[in-house]
Formats: sequence, structure tokens, C-alpha cells
Amino acid sequence: MAIRLSILGCYAATPRTLTNPTSQVLEIKGHMFLIDCGEGTQVQLRKNKIKFSRINHIFISHLHGDHFFGLPGLISTFRLLGRDKEMHIYGPKGIKEAITLLLKLGDSWTNYHLIFHELTARERTVLFEDDKVSVETIPLNHRVYTNGFLFREKPSERKLNIDAVRAHNIDKAYFRNIKKGKDVQLDDGRVIPNGMLTLDPPKPMSYAYCGDTRFKPDIVDQIIGVDILYHEATFLETEKHLCAKTKHATAKEAATIARMAKVGTLILGHYSTRYRSIDAFKVEAEEIFGNVELADDGKIFEF
Amino acid sequence: MAIRLSILGCYAATPRTLTNPTSQVLEIKGHMFLIDCGEGTQVQLRKNKIKFSRINHIFISHLHGDHFFGLPGLISTFRLLGRDKEMHIYGPKGIKEAITLLLKLGDSWTNYHLIFHELTARERTVLFEDDKVSVETIPLNHRVYTNGFLFREKPSERKLNIDAVRAHNIDKAYFRNIKKGKDVQLDDGRVIPNGMLTLDPPKPMSYAYCGDTRFKPDIVDQIIGVDILYHEATFLETEKHLCAKTKHATAKEAATIARMAKVGTLILGHYSTRYRSIDAFKVEAEEIFGNVELADDGKIFEF
Repeated sequence: MAIRLSILGCYAATPRTLTNPTSQVLEIKGHMFLIDCGEGTQVQLRKNKIKFSRINHIFISHLHGDHFFGLPGLISTFRLLGRDKEMHIYGPKGIKEAITLLLKLGDSWTNYHLIFHELTARERTVLFEDDKVSVETIPLNHRVYTNGFLFREKPSERKLNIDAVRAHNIDKAYFRNIKKGKDVQLDDGRVIPNGMLTLDPPKPMSYAYCGDTRFKPDIVDQIIGVDILYHEATFLETEKHLCAKTKHATAKEAATIARMAKVGTLILGHYSTRYRSIDAFKVEAEEIFGNVELADDGKIFEF
Repeated sequence: MAIRLSILGCYAATPRTLTNPTSQVLEIKGHMFLIDCGEGTQVQLRKNKIKFSRINHIFISHLHGDHFFGLPGLISTFRLLGRDKEMHIYGPKGIKEAITLLLKLGDSWTNYHLIFHELTARERTVLFEDDKVSVETIPLNHRVYTNGFLFREKPSERKLNIDAVRAHNIDKAYFRNIKKGKDVQLDDGRVIPNGMLTLDPPKPMSYAYCGDTRFKPDIVDQIIGVDILYHEATFLETEKHLCAKTKHATAKEAATIARMAKVGTLILGHYSTRYRSIDAFKVEAEEIFGNVELADDGKIFEF
């Protein structure tokens, strides 16, 4: 498994008895990234048996309640659970003031270091990077300042072809460089090309999360060829007239972005609660794009 | 039914899969008062089939998350449900700043009038009063500024004794005054005492909510003789040493208050989630006080 995406909630607007506002956990290269945090997220984390302590980075797309109102409680719960590791929170400017005020009013400061990365840029911005993965914003178009997030694995080291390495009787001291793609020069001067000693590593995966947004074709350049695109589909085309005011997209529009960007899989979510069933979202999107999945609360995708 | 108390949540600290932080709805004399609003309250309202539109007054005891973090979402949901009636919110100073900031950050102002009644007084204060009921604060002792709330029915009008009224052939024009307790002077000069024409109305009921607090015997004077006392019992006596720092009470201490105040029924709640079962709270309290009930999420009390 390269990527595991756990949908904690994927419905628009208010939490209801059986549906939750937006939140999801992306497991990628050993990281566990929490994306958005609607009310009820911490209960959904428990239901999905996700260890709170493994979350060190939280990405908030925008400051509407259905993506954000679960965060103050989650921050408090980390404290109650005895967290001491630092926690990074990425979100629109204002998020620090809001969380700080709520902690101050409750005289409930965290014991751990809470590090806010406040965003105001309208251009793509790298938020996080290590040797395994990078995360950058995808500027979106919603009623308030909103970002999507693009998660990319970095290429892994090449895999040792054990049989080939043994056949050439190559010493372990060379392994590190071989995995980095280097050729080997033996003591007798012969050079063995790296391709004879290694296998291709798994292709790096990528995941684009496009939370709340109007149809915005200019994101296509940035997400071209991603393996998985989560794109909001609040409405069906029958309610398309609502998109202009609310700045949301239809299933067809999400599928159009997926087709333009030639993504691998499109996952739809953020359904308006006006619809009794979400099946029609898939039907509508599949008229435009072939590989459509429906997010649903508690669903896990593995790629 | 005079009073109906719906427990939406009654556990301390964090929301969990099967338990909710504090919130309850008190139905009294046609009012539906929401008391505290931990995360998840709006889902609990739905599960309990309580009509959102009937809530016009929300009382927040203090600004710890487990009593308050459900409020921003609930306020947003009222807007999404098309509310136009004004909403009164009573809570510690700072509550207005917090809610206003969250609404501002989401550019999600309410369409209805949100009226904050911010509290700072350390003495009992009348918060609401009409011809049927009054609500006043009960100053408590917790880590942050905290109030309980005392709800009192006002005496009802006397009930017409229809048989007696007919026997005396009394005209309807007199009924209004008779129900107010007045005697009737007939045309022939005879006076019929009110007691012959009316029956006693139901005794006015009273409910005291003492949310988070240390054992605080000086509240007894204020709540003496109330019909129902909800008193927090975060710990058992075995964990009494935790009360000083956390400023919470044990089941025994809650029962001691109930006994001193000679209340009708004691309801315990706000249990620490460290206990696997809450049965021991009842056992401990019953050693001190006879009539003990355990709050639990979804439980409804009628008096």
C-alpha cells in the first residue's frame, strides 16, 4: 500500500445523525496527515481507530465551520491525551487568532507546542517537505479564502536486485550508492551499470484534495496526471444554478476537471444533504470521466 | 408533565464514540432551554428529535470546550435552517468575542438576531424572567469563571372547579378573576370565597443545574428545597485527591449538597471517562442521600 485515505466525513454543511462534515486522513510515506476538521472529527478518528498520536500535521482548507469547527476540541483532546510532540497547523490567516482565543477563554493552554502556518498567498505554496513527501497548496475559488492541498511522494530509492548483486559478488559497502542509482566500479576496473543491479522502485503516488471550490479549470496545470483527485461535488447538474452563489461545483464539473487533468481516479465528496442518495453523483460524473469513486463516511481507499 | 429534562451528553472532557460532553435541554412551561453545548450537541439534538426552532435561549456555564465547543456549529446550523427568530445566549464574558470571530472568519453572519448576555457577576443574577418562569445564575467554583443555573416555575393560576362554578351559576365574565384567586360577589350581595370555586394548581417546580464545580456548600441557601438538582460528580471518593486541582466534585460531595439543600431528586453527571461503569456513582451518593438518579446520554427525566 502506498496511500491510504480514510474518509472521516464528506458531507456539506451541518453534522447530522448519520453523516459528518468534512475531514479525512491521508497516510502517505509514514505520515498521517489530517485534512480539514469538521465538528465530530475526533469521534470519527476514534471510530476509525486512528491513533491520535500519529497525527503531526493538520491542513485546513478554509474557515467555514464544516471544515474547521472540530479543530478546537481536537487540540484540547491532544492535551488531555498527554501529547508533548509539536503539532503543525496549516490554514488561512485568522486560524491562530481563533484557536488562541478559545484556549485563552478556557484557560486551557496546550502542553505541547502548537505551530501555526498561516496562509494568505493566492499562488501555490509549498507547506511541507521532507525526503519522502511534499505538500503544497492548490489555490481554489470559494466564498472565503480557500486552498486545496497536493500531496506528492518523492521517488523512492532504487531496489537492490539481490540475485544480480550476489552474482557479481558485490560488497555490502556499495549498496547505499547502488540504491541511489550509481553504477559500480569493481576492483578490476570493470563498471557494472546500475540498471543491471537494481529494480525500479514503485512509482511515486500523488493525491490532490480540492475541498470547497467552484469549477476552476486553471487548477488543471497543477494537478495534471495526479493519481487520485478528491474534488468536491456539492450539487448535481440539476442544481447547477446554486453553484454561482455558493461557489461550489457539480459532479459533472468535478469530472471535467478530472478528465482535463488526466488523473487516475476521481473521488467525489462534499455532497449537499438535500440528496437522499449519492448514487446519482457517480452516474453524472461517469458520463465525463471513466474512473469515479464516491467518498462516504468511514470509507477507506487504498492505492 | 411539568418538567422534562433531556440529557444530550453528560461525560467530562472529550467526546468519544459512545459518550458526549455536556449538554441538556430543559422543557419547562413551554420553554425549551438549552444548557451547555459541548461538541456534538447538534447531532444529539437530532437523535433526540428536539426541534431546533423551539430553542430560543442557550445558557453556557463556562468556556471549557466540553461545555461550549458545539455552540459555533449550532449557531451556523440555525442559519442554514433558515431561522429568523432572535436567539439569546447567556454565558461568561468572552463568549461574544469568540463566536463573533468565528462567524467573521467564515464570513458566515447569521440572518437572525444573536443576542449575547455576557456574565461577569460573582453574585446570583436573574438572567430571564417572564410570567411563567425565571432563570438565575448559581455562582460556582471551577478553574474558570462558572455559573450554574436555577430554573423556577412561577405559580400557575388557580384551577376552576367547574362543578362548583356551575352550582353557583357564575357567569363566565368572572372566570378570569376567579383563576387569579379573587372571591366573587354575586348580584344579591353574597360573597363566594375563592376556595369554594377553585382547586390548587400544580406546585411550581424548580430545577438547579450545577455544572462544573468544586464542593461548594454556600450554594445550598440558594437551592434549598428545589425539586431537582443536577450536580456534577466527576470523580468517586477514591479519586477525591484530584478534586482540588481540577476543581470538580465527587458523587459523595454532590449527595452532601443534595442532603443539605433538602432537594427532591439528585441527578448526577459529568463523570470522568476513567470509569468503566457509572453505577458506583449512584452507590456512593446513596450512602448520603436517598433519591439519586444517574444522568446518561439520551436519558429523559420527567417530573
